[in-house]
Amino acid sequence: MEKVKVGIVGLGRLGRQHAENLAYRIPNCELAAVCSVIEAEVKEAQEKWNVPYGYLKYEDMLDNKELDAIFIASPSGFHCQQIKQALEAGFHVFSEKPLGLYLEEAEEVQEVVEAHPNQVFMLGFMRRYDRSYAAAKEKIEQGHIGEPIFIRCYGLDPAAQLDSFLQFAKSNYSGGLFLDMAIHDLDLARWYLKTEPKEVWAIGGGYARSEFDEIQDAETGAAMVRFENNAMGVFLAGRNCAHGYHIETEIIGTKGSLRIGTVPERNQIVIMSETGVVQECVAGFLERFEQAYLSEVEEFVNCILENRRPSVTVEDGVESTRLGYACKKSFETKQLVDVTKDKVTFQ
Amino acid sequence: MEKVKVGIVGLGRLGRQHAENLAYRIPNCELAAVCSVIEAEVKEAQEKWNVPYGYLKYEDMLDNKELDAIFIASPSGFHCQQIKQALEAGFHVFSEKPLGLYLEEAEEVQEVVEAHPNQVFMLGFMRRYDRSYAAAKEKIEQGHIGEPIFIRCYGLDPAAQLDSFLQFAKSNYSGGLFLDMAIHDLDLARWYLKTEPKEVWAIGGGYARSEFDEIQDAETGAAMVRFENNAMGVFLAGRNCAHGYHIETEIIGTKGSLRIGTVPERNQIVIMSETGVVQECVAGFLERFEQAYLSEVEEFVNCILENRRPSVTVEDGVESTRLGYACKKSFETKQLVDVTKDKVTFQ
Amino acid sequence: MEKVKVGIVGLGRLGRQHAENLAYRIPNCELAAVCSVIEAEVKEAQEKWNVPYGYLKYEDMLDNKELDAIFIASPSGFHCQQIKQALEAGFHVFSEKPLGLYLEEAEEVQEVVEAHPNQVFMLGFMRRYDRSYAAAKEKIEQGHIGEPIFIRCYGLDPAAQLDSFLQFAKSNYSGGLFLDMAIHDLDLARWYLKTEPKEVWAIGGGYARSEFDEIQDAETGAAMVRFENNAMGVFLAGRNCAHGYHIETEIIGTKGSLRIGTVPERNQIVIMSETGVVQECVAGFLERFEQAYLSEVEEFVNCILENRRPSVTVEDGVESTRLGYACKKSFETKQLVDVTKDKVTFQ
Amino acid sequence: MEKVKVGIVGLGRLGRQHAENLAYRIPNCELAAVCSVIEAEVKEAQEKWNVPYGYLKYEDMLDNKELDAIFIASPSGFHCQQIKQALEAGFHVFSEKPLGLYLEEAEEVQEVVEAHPNQVFMLGFMRRYDRSYAAAKEKIEQGHIGEPIFIRCYGLDPAAQLDSFLQFAKSNYSGGLFLDMAIHDLDLARWYLKTEPKEVWAIGGGYARSEFDEIQDAETGAAMVRFENNAMGVFLAGRNCAHGYHIETEIIGTKGSLRIGTVPERNQIVIMSETGVVQECVAGFLERFEQAYLSEVEEFVNCILENRRPSVTVEDGVESTRLGYACKKSFETKQLVDVTKDKVTFQ
Repeated sequence: MEKVKVGIVGLGRLGRQHAENLAYRIPNCELAAVCSVIEAEVKEAQEKWNVPYGYLKYEDMLDNKELDAIFIASPSGFHCQQIKQALEAGFHVFSEKPLGLYLEEAEEVQEVVEAHPNQVFMLGFMRRYDRSYAAAKEKIEQGHIGEPIFIRCYGLDPAAQLDSFLQFAKSNYSGGLFLDMAIHDLDLARWYLKTEPKEVWAIGGGYARSEFDEIQDAETGAAMVRFENNAMGVFLAGRNCAHGYHIETEIIGTKGSLRIGTVPERNQIVIMSETGVVQECVAGFLERFEQAYLSEVEEFVNCILENRRPSVTVEDGVESTRLGYACKKSFETKQLVDVTKDKVTFQ
Repeated sequence: MEKVKVGIVGLGRLGRQHAENLAYRIPNCELAAVCSVIEAEVKEAQEKWNVPYGYLKYEDMLDNKELDAIFIASPSGFHCQQIKQALEAGFHVFSEKPLGLYLEEAEEVQEVVEAHPNQVFMLGFMRRYDRSYAAAKEKIEQGHIGEPIFIRCYGLDPAAQLDSFLQFAKSNYSGGLFLDMAIHDLDLARWYLKTEPKEVWAIGGGYARSEFDEIQDAETGAAMVRFENNAMGVFLAGRNCAHGYHIETEIIGTKGSLRIGTVPERNQIVIMSETGVVQECVAGFLERFEQAYLSEVEEFVNCILENRRPSVTVEDGVESTRLGYACKKSFETKQLVDVTKDKVTFQ
Repeated sequence: MEKVKVGIVGLGRLGRQHAENLAYRIPNCELAAVCSVIEAEVKEAQEKWNVPYGYLKYEDMLDNKELDAIFIASPSGFHCQQIKQALEAGFHVFSEKPLGLYLEEAEEVQEVVEAHPNQVFMLGFMRRYDRSYAAAKEKIEQGHIGEPIFIRCYGLDPAAQLDSFLQFAKSNYSGGLFLDMAIHDLDLARWYLKTEPKEVWAIGGGYARSEFDEIQDAETGAAMVRFENNAMGVFLAGRNCAHGYHIETEIIGTKGSLRIGTVPERNQIVIMSETGVVQECVAGFLERFEQAYLSEVEEFVNCILENRRPSVTVEDGVESTRLGYACKKSFETKQLVDVTKDKVTFQ
Repeated sequence: MEKVKVGIVGLGRLGRQHAENLAYRIPNCELAAVCSVIEAEVKEAQEKWNVPYGYLKYEDMLDNKELDAIFIASPSGFHCQQIKQALEAGFHVFSEKPLGLYLEEAEEVQEVVEAHPNQVFMLGFMRRYDRSYAAAKEKIEQGHIGEPIFIRCYGLDPAAQLDSFLQFAKSNYSGGLFLDMAIHDLDLARWYLKTEPKEVWAIGGGYARSEFDEIQDAETGAAMVRFENNAMGVFLAGRNCAHGYHIETEIIGTKGSLRIGTVPERNQIVIMSETGVVQECVAGFLERFEQAYLSEVEEFVNCILENRRPSVTVEDGVESTRLGYACKKSFETKQLVDVTKDKVTFQ
């Protein structure tokens, strides 16, 4: 069995984690090239993980025909373009979420993906590969909770990162709270409920920080969605979670319910002291989803080797983006928004 | 110190619990009269708790000038009328929730209460007297979570009672899911957030039982509320909770958050068996709120003895009813509803 | 139905709690007399709870033939003598634990109780009446965990009371850690396992405070017991629990296990803050066992009214004392001690 | 940087897990040889993980001088001999626990290890590398719980494996419950408490299965240990845990306490159904300690590459074996056993 040779673009915090996984922890995978506009990052990566090829220009990496697959971990604004280029150059492609920051470009990517049916395309909705989330899917499919009728998703970034986010958001277009933070949850809702959204109302504000008003974004926001089959969804997203990185999902069905991550525990320790009984919490996404980040890439590599398609499709990226945009629109217009295709239009 | 002599009307399940508390468990209180249209209930109560006076007609009980206070535990449709009669007859009055099934009658009661400022009037929002809910209020007032910005309330009745509810609702007007079930939560939201609701969107359906469509009610429903200070509220109410009676409240603030009743535990036992680690759950409101039902009446009696006013006011009853009606209207019209006074009108 | 008239002796912290319960919260019970050597306590109690009779001398209270029952909440050293006197004066008797501080006097009391078979005698092993402990008994009897083979009991007093205990213990004989603190757990073990102890080894020390060495007692100690049916027991007792009052019991059976009170939660709130997810803990026995203190006395009064015998017998008091003494002896001699009757002898 | 070339002996369940880790998931490591007396296992492993060398005889593998390190995952009875051979042949050595089944051979290994100070020797006490156990160590070292005075360790194998264990144990010497199951916990106690054991009393039996009496072993057993600094330890080991694989550790200090693994949760899901609120549990050691099995080998490889010594020493193996033997002796003789070196003698 041959090894899949991968080139990665983007060597930021998450990119480096992926690079290390690709280099060391994925069976039958070889990290053969790294690419970043920052030369020092390329050098460091090549040395640290013994990577033969290093590039400053993405197009140069695409010219390397030794590679089998391109792994995109660059800033969100580049995803769509880089996916298209890589697919057209004949590579299998893995892209970090989101598919795109605009619905139109996401839809364009969908066309390109569909035009290259023999190449694996996978989007980094890694939660589906988290053991707890995957086991929940299985429980639901097995009928343990009956028919799902309600989903509640919390996606809360730690307060400790609030300042650095604000600094970033003032000079970059992040997509806003719902497209940037809630996108994983919007995907999970579609995955678990097996229905598409119909209407959404989103509210929120810059509760602890007025700077959010300036950038027309919400620090914390809530969206309620009615789905086509009349199931209900509640999504809370935020950037000011005092106790850490809080990702929690609840699905209520006609015969029972289940919750994932009620307490975002750091480990299996509880400490008993004057304070009471304390469970420390995870500080960020790399800590919470370490296993999922590994497993999704294992799946990507196995799909290539076994000529299969991953269960996360490009359509999942498009539809979650569509819902994210509807949340954003509702938040901005303060109105109920109809999510169904024909009616939602964006300038 | 004299004992407060109380007459109770209504000897249903909750009425009998109150009667037993009034008879035995409230310091400086004496259950002196019972009233019910069902003669057998009156007889049984008089014997069981050694109650001197028994009545079939409410007006007859009001003629008994030995009594100090009237305790109303009759069906919801009678509350407003009986409160007015008792106040006008000069008694202190405790009424079970809801204040009324219609907003107009609730507002009328408010006028009558305000016209009798020297008589104690208290509404049975017992959750405020539950130790956990009261402690949460204290934590919030002390600033432990900063400024509250989001509240999530679950009020889910056990599936085991679904059939008997449907039977009741087919021939009686319950007020509907939001006015009947969510009313406690709507009160809690106003209490914790210290703001009034501005807009609401409510959705839901008869997921497990189509009979709910016939009675134009929801078996499970969700309402999202934007408050005047831009705080957010999510309310889930239901009548089909597989694991029992699930009352849960979460308040997120700018500096932390707290949850009450995440697991609706029956007791402090966990059982470890082939099934896993299992925590059994409470079966109903009398089991969950036993202490609160006692404490609220202690407070009522103490208010009379000490010539104080309880912290639950008639206005709390009116405003929670107003919000409950707005939820109902939103659910029925499928529209965003403005809750502010002038705009909401009901025929 | 007549009310049971009770006279209480001892108006310390626990005595006052019992007095208030007897006065207000027990159906068909009347607190008719209070007795204490401290005149101010008697006065205060008579006024506060409207008690007709007050006594400074115990014998004077026993002369009051209006009373039906005597409730003993005096210091441990007086229990045996006062029980005997009250029984011989013809009263029903409730005594706080322990039965006695010495095995011989406990055995003497047993004889006196057995000589008055028509009078109710009950010992204050209130945990058996705590809802969680009672439900655990039921689960075990129903076979949910198979045959019990191991019990683990923690009885840990809060560190906040360590100083006041040391002050008390320097001038009073408390019985020592195992007889004073572990006695409830020793009773629970016999109750749940339905077997008698055979051998014990006890260890411990004055870990945080060397004063414990001076009074030949342990601040924290552990005892392991082998029972006659070869079941195992582990008992941890202590006076220096940082997070509060920690009472926890685990029973492992051949088919499952159960735990009571793993987290000594104060209420149903969890607080999420920078510290993590925090559950506050109960501060002491009155807070943890409020319901049990009430329920045991309800049972005592009902036994009198219904001419029944409580399930806690004087033998339970004697046998738990015997095991407590064996723990103490093992701790002092550093040897395995045989608990069976003939072999254990005390000077 | 060169890769460490490893040869593994033993391809049973745990051996295969290690082999897969060595092949794929350890940076700078190459699985270069596999050895087993079962030819099919060798074949399968070579193919599955693309391993160049396969051996049926251990001595043949030791002749392969391309290898840097030998990884021993063979049955316990072979450990000592194979460690000695590998060290004398000049290899770095990792051995699964236990060091040996007899104290004498463990002590012999210690001498050999000490005679080869330039070769890395590491024993598979993987729990020390589990994130929760490692974080607990850090918390203790930082003083969060004051001075540790009590440790409680549970090591309970799932009932689902009881039959296969009995089958194995009837024809093989496992070392018995305390040496085989409790050995990890005995090591943890020494690690956390930083003191050596002084006295032990161990009890137990074949509660659910009388076959344990026939093989003179305990199905479930408890040992209580007094350490040299007077700290206390309680160890529960068993092979009949209904809810799965239960590894739990508690350390109580003078200023607080901590627990690891109170609920042996399988994942972050809780399921709410008619049964109550359910947390499913891990089924075995590979599931619970997957991360630790990986991390310990990463540490082994890093120690070789960086010329360091792992924190688990051969002495840890010898001393935990000594205590395990003392537990076994106490269980068999029903006596308190002195663990200190001079006094414990074995035939």
